[in-house]
Amino acid sequence: MERLVLHEYAASGNCYKIRLTAALLGLRLERREYDIVKGETRTEEFLTRVNSNGRIPVLQVGERFLPESNAACFYLADGSRLVPEDPFDRADMLRWMFWEQYNHEPNIATLRFWYLWVGETNFSEFQRAAVPVKRAAGAAALALMDEHLARRDWFAGSAVSVADVALYAYTHVAEGGGFDPRSFGHVKHWLKRIEELPNYAPMTDPER
Amino acid sequence: MERLVLHEYAASGNCYKIRLTAALLGLRLERREYDIVKGETRTEEFLTRVNSNGRIPVLQVGERFLPESNAACFYLADGSRLVPEDPFDRADMLRWMFWEQYNHEPNIATLRFWYLWVGETNFSEFQRAAVPVKRAAGAAALALMDEHLARRDWFAGSAVSVADVALYAYTHVAEGGGFDPRSFGHVKHWLKRIEELPNYAPMTDPER
Repeated sequence: MERLVLHEYAASGNCYKIRLTAALLGLRLERREYDIVKGETRTEEFLTRVNSNGRIPVLQVGERFLPESNAACFYLADGSRLVPEDPFDRADMLRWMFWEQYNHEPNIATLRFWYLWVGETNFSEFQRAAVPVKRAAGAAALALMDEHLARRDWFAGSAVSVADVALYAYTHVAEGGGFDPRSFGHVKHWLKRIEELPNYAPMTDPER
Repeated sequence: MERLVLHEYAASGNCYKIRLTAALLGLRLERREYDIVKGETRTEEFLTRVNSNGRIPVLQVGERFLPESNAACFYLADGSRLVPEDPFDRADMLRWMFWEQYNHEPNIATLRFWYLWVGETNFSEFQRAAVPVKRAAGAAALALMDEHLARRDWFAGSAVSVADVALYAYTHVAEGGGFDPRSFGHVKHWLKRIEELPNYAPMTDPER
């Protein structure tokens, strides 16, 4: 495989997903950190070279750049045991990854970012109006995960896949946005199953 | 391939994506219509049997059910000329599909739904606060597409893929949300390239 460089902000769950996928597969990632609060992903050089969307994470593969966390996880895991071989199960894995970016991340990760990085006293009018909507939608997302996990150990197929990794990233730190993910019993046990996987790596890397 | 049934609301761009993917590939889809305004996707039967998330589209494959429009497009196109063979290009295609669901659909499709289905006089406080945010984010999404298309004919790889289909669905009817997609020259020509593809099917099916 070509040289892999993760352009990231380490406290972002979207960046962590990619590190966890790489860890589970034993792949080596170089890491380049950007301070999103200081606007380091909005510089002319970043927008031109790395991602015109001005966002991290971006997975650099040789001299090519791949934005979007779940696309990067898929790239690393394509052909591995973290992607089901069965075509329906593979699409069902992507189903949960699309669901994560539409129903989970914009609510659970966004509230975490607003409360921990922006700060409630600095909320805009839009943010104040959006909090109850995102709070309800985030809670509904956790409830739907819990219902799904009542009947199975992993989100898609019969084993752990990158769908589980993608959903784990912001679920396990959902407290930051004011959610209580471990109050959902099936979610709580699924979080533990992930944390017991061989080569599991925590979000906060003690080596950093 | 097993029997394919699309559970849908025909005016939804997310449902149309799947029909257009099937049309381009010459696949036959049975169609079952639900009136989302009347809550037909929130019935106990729908939630239990079709999708616990209460949303369309859902692609039924035999007796299995696949929610999330872009996952359904991927399933239909997996292994076809609409999915690049090269692993990086395949992931890059998914990158644009994740981007569509995160940066494009929640702005461009959501404003279309709010203006054409909900009606401005019925907007909630949240919706009124969200309109300018979504208007700016939707315009930025169209500008980013235009910039990308200045350098290439299709979003990923060297040919049309389901990333183009996914992005076409709500871009070509973005006027409904108050956007002017054809004012972006490269987007305008890309829309036309899609409409000239063999087996292209319009959103409004004259046979219905």
